[in-house]
Amino acid sequence: MIAKEREEREERMHHSAAHIMAEAVQQLFPGARLGIGPTIINGFYYDFELSRPLTPDDLPLIEDKMREIIGQDEPFVVEEMGKDEARHLFSDQPYKLELIDEIPDASVTVYSQGSFVDLCRGPHLDSTGQVREFKLTHIAGAYWRGDEKQPMLQRIYGVAFDSRAELDEYLVRQAEAARRDHRKLGKELDLYSTHEEIGPGLICWHPKGAVIREVIEDFWRAEHHRRGYDVVYTPHIAKLDLWKTSGHWDFYRDYLFSPIEMEGHQYMLRPMNCLGHILIYKSELRSYRSLPIRYAELGTVYRYERTGVLYGLARVRGFTQDDAHIFCRTDQVEEELVGVLNLVQFMMSSFGFGEYEVFLSTRPDRYAGTASMWEEATESLRRALERLELPYEVDPGEGVFYGPKIDVKLKDALGHEWQGPTIQVDFNLPQRFDVCYIGEDGSEHTAVMIHRTVLGAMERLLACLTEHYGGAFPVWLSPVQAVIIPIADRHVDYAHQIESDLMNGGIRARVDDRPQRMNMKIREAQLEKVPYMLVVGDKEMTSTSASIRLRSGEDLGLETVKEIKSRIASAAEERL
Amino acid sequence: MIAKEREEREERMHHSAAHIMAEAVQQLFPGARLGIGPTIINGFYYDFELSRPLTPDDLPLIEDKMREIIGQDEPFVVEEMGKDEARHLFSDQPYKLELIDEIPDASVTVYSQGSFVDLCRGPHLDSTGQVREFKLTHIAGAYWRGDEKQPMLQRIYGVAFDSRAELDEYLVRQAEAARRDHRKLGKELDLYSTHEEIGPGLICWHPKGAVIREVIEDFWRAEHHRRGYDVVYTPHIAKLDLWKTSGHWDFYRDYLFSPIEMEGHQYMLRPMNCLGHILIYKSELRSYRSLPIRYAELGTVYRYERTGVLYGLARVRGFTQDDAHIFCRTDQVEEELVGVLNLVQFMMSSFGFGEYEVFLSTRPDRYAGTASMWEEATESLRRALERLELPYEVDPGEGVFYGPKIDVKLKDALGHEWQGPTIQVDFNLPQRFDVCYIGEDGSEHTAVMIHRTVLGAMERLLACLTEHYGGAFPVWLSPVQAVIIPIADRHVDYAHQIESDLMNGGIRARVDDRPQRMNMKIREAQLEKVPYMLVVGDKEMTSTSASIRLRSGEDLGLETVKEIKSRIASAAEERL
Repeated sequence: MIAKEREEREERMHHSAAHIMAEAVQQLFPGARLGIGPTIINGFYYDFELSRPLTPDDLPLIEDKMREIIGQDEPFVVEEMGKDEARHLFSDQPYKLELIDEIPDASVTVYSQGSFVDLCRGPHLDSTGQVREFKLTHIAGAYWRGDEKQPMLQRIYGVAFDSRAELDEYLVRQAEAARRDHRKLGKELDLYSTHEEIGPGLICWHPKGAVIREVIEDFWRAEHHRRGYDVVYTPHIAKLDLWKTSGHWDFYRDYLFSPIEMEGHQYMLRPMNCLGHILIYKSELRSYRSLPIRYAELGTVYRYERTGVLYGLARVRGFTQDDAHIFCRTDQVEEELVGVLNLVQFMMSSFGFGEYEVFLSTRPDRYAGTASMWEEATESLRRALERLELPYEVDPGEGVFYGPKIDVKLKDALGHEWQGPTIQVDFNLPQRFDVCYIGEDGSEHTAVMIHRTVLGAMERLLACLTEHYGGAFPVWLSPVQAVIIPIADRHVDYAHQIESDLMNGGIRARVDDRPQRMNMKIREAQLEKVPYMLVVGDKEMTSTSASIRLRSGEDLGLETVKEIKSRIASAAEERL
Repeated sequence: MIAKEREEREERMHHSAAHIMAEAVQQLFPGARLGIGPTIINGFYYDFELSRPLTPDDLPLIEDKMREIIGQDEPFVVEEMGKDEARHLFSDQPYKLELIDEIPDASVTVYSQGSFVDLCRGPHLDSTGQVREFKLTHIAGAYWRGDEKQPMLQRIYGVAFDSRAELDEYLVRQAEAARRDHRKLGKELDLYSTHEEIGPGLICWHPKGAVIREVIEDFWRAEHHRRGYDVVYTPHIAKLDLWKTSGHWDFYRDYLFSPIEMEGHQYMLRPMNCLGHILIYKSELRSYRSLPIRYAELGTVYRYERTGVLYGLARVRGFTQDDAHIFCRTDQVEEELVGVLNLVQFMMSSFGFGEYEVFLSTRPDRYAGTASMWEEATESLRRALERLELPYEVDPGEGVFYGPKIDVKLKDALGHEWQGPTIQVDFNLPQRFDVCYIGEDGSEHTAVMIHRTVLGAMERLLACLTEHYGGAFPVWLSPVQAVIIPIADRHVDYAHQIESDLMNGGIRARVDDRPQRMNMKIREAQLEKVPYMLVVGDKEMTSTSASIRLRSGEDLGLETVKEIKSRIASAAEERL
């Protein structure tokens, strides 16, 4: 089956399963009022107003009833009818009546199976018997039409597949995704927290999450210095007028926090780091010979997002971007873009992301600058991608207001996509801020600016890494790299000796000297996903060694402390 | 002469010099109206309303006239008179009339020398001839009574000493202070900038300043991990209610920025980092065995200060504190304070500050908590200081609202004092936020919190280091540690080879391959205060070496690249 045919068949199956579920619910809950029942990726849902709240225990009963309806193999019958006839038919279904009123056409279509009938455009399978493997996965509350002023309905989600194997695979993958959910692991591994007292979407990094961030930031800084970037620091607030000059106030207002008053001026939390970098650039006259200038900053920015869309570390209101702005001449743009894309590839492989997709986003409806500027910028992005032979797709109209961009989407171990690096070419801000340099000809030229972030945001990166590795971070990123477990009290001093030996070698080691039993300590270290457990008893003490156990459960036997030190250090060094 | 006598004699001399200056000005500018003429440290000033603006060229003329008056050796004569008589005497001096009106007594005192008479409490020297060595240093505008709605007067500053040697020493020190001014060096060495467009007191760290900050932050983090601190990151904004609970809203409002509205809640830029740390602490139940917990953060805070008091990097509105909060049991407080004081001593010596003064600040008028809490906290600070045999002075009433503190004031190379480390014991916030732990007895106990910062603020530290070292930062802090200067074009490749060799060894090296002459490059590197200049020509190329010159001008002759590398690396390692 080719992809398109397959998609269409899935659509019919999901749609049909939704109708079957609705019929089952109506039979089990007489008087149920039906909302809408669309298809989604891998499945479907339907919204109901019922006489009582559903519990997870209801789902198997509804599934049984669905199987009964499937067994009857009733054909799906389509009928077109006038709106008045439809209104009569759905007279006890107020939500359907609302939908009928909104349909602009004179007639509507309804689909029926047996005695059940639903307002629907279709398409459906031929009969209920063609729905194969399905499962109702969960229930949730949902406002009618997503409007919190409307009644709260009960939504039942389900999935359906052609074969048992496909369904099973899906369910396993779902369970794995739930197991890897960074919000769950973030708590279990004590990486971060949010607090109602501080406000939603504002992250507190706990010591273990912060160690990961420190390692990443150190690595990032060293790599940027090596590649000719200069690190800078700029303030988190600035006068509002600056954001008017930049165009953010006009084009980006929905994401801005409300202003702060001070001494008759309005200040604003920065949504981006670019303006500080522009002002540093402009603090002296630049010559064509001093370009490119590359300013990098681990800059925390604040953007307003509705509470409803906030999601763990992945979508927040305050985040630290690994931002940089490259100021260069027109003839340097392509080379700089190639350099940035090289850095992107290096960073992606360093963090273990083998798969990613590249998108070239072009001019949106609302944009600053001229169409020809946009054309030129888009072309230079295109040429850089082609020089590196990077396959890409065009994402029309998805550029930011000040320029076209390259977006890289990472795939984690479960195939989920994450927003990754972004590279934007900007001919617009340099004009608005008169960002220029003295050319070889002795006169002023406007510089080109490239905005780029390769890790995106520290918060989202930690979310992504947590899910990608299921919390078992590579050694170089592990908050604790080795736990030393003394078998008895008399081994505690020796354990601390190893600890300080490892720590002097830059290894994050910790002794577990609690009074608990060894096996429990090993189990806890495994749950904590510590890469190396070093068990020490009499035998180990006499041979200046330790017994190594990996978090996988694998036992590596006895190794000398010196060997262990070099084993862990080289794993960290190689970013394993 | 003992200090007090000396002080009194200086006071008389400065006061007398001020009167002599006023007489000189009146003689040179007939009709001059006199404001006030007090003494200040090392000297005096006097405010005048004159027929024309003064220029620096006027100062020598005034000095000449002063010398004439001194030569006449007129006695200072004091006289008490009724206010009406005084009003008559000063009838053409409106500012003096204003002062007379405000004196509550029935009579006033006036001092005269020759024909000059001034409203004055004294004391003075016996005669004008006793004023020895003096110099008028500069002029400035000053509003009458410091009120911008009053007329702007012209202020002349002067200094006076007993001997020529003292005056000369003072003038040399002043010139040196001006040469070391961090605002001047900050610009010359390209360390930082502020921008009217962003707002006053908000710092942009340029690449060279940022390198110093990175080195300091890395050093700071490593040292804190070594000493059992955990690094965390917390948001720059939080809901206003949190600051009401903490007491900041009541006790600290003058320093708070105005709130930010979002979704019906008020948020505020944080003036301190403590509350995020409290919430992380409270994110799980803590046992007495897990204490002390030490959270450290390089946390940027925002505090409102009037524009008028902002000063370079030393007094700003946004700054990054090297903050930490220690949560511990009552029986651990003293030990923790000793640990912090040890860290303070280590840090001070690492940055080259040999001299500092320690102050113990006690309960202010407005305070939170009970007097007995304050007593207990003050005692534990006192005991820790005494255990380390650190001499200290008590600064009564200078504690912050939530607890007493130890303040350390650093002395830079010129003897100027800088606000340094601060350590506060806090029994108050733990109560307000119910910060507790489960004791050995199984029940809840309130924890004690210690707030501390050892470097103070990155901004102020950079200001202080810049002035302390006059911009010639020690090798480990120098933004550029070595400049490699090729003698001719044919040596450029070799220079770059050395550069990458040094950089691979972690040394911040840079080739100066501009077309300028060698001597000019050396001069510029010296002005930039780069510790090592490595000159390379034919001789150096054939021997894989370079000729080393220090920024002092000293010539160390030829050394192999390997020797140079280890010379620089070990200087940096030893924090020289």
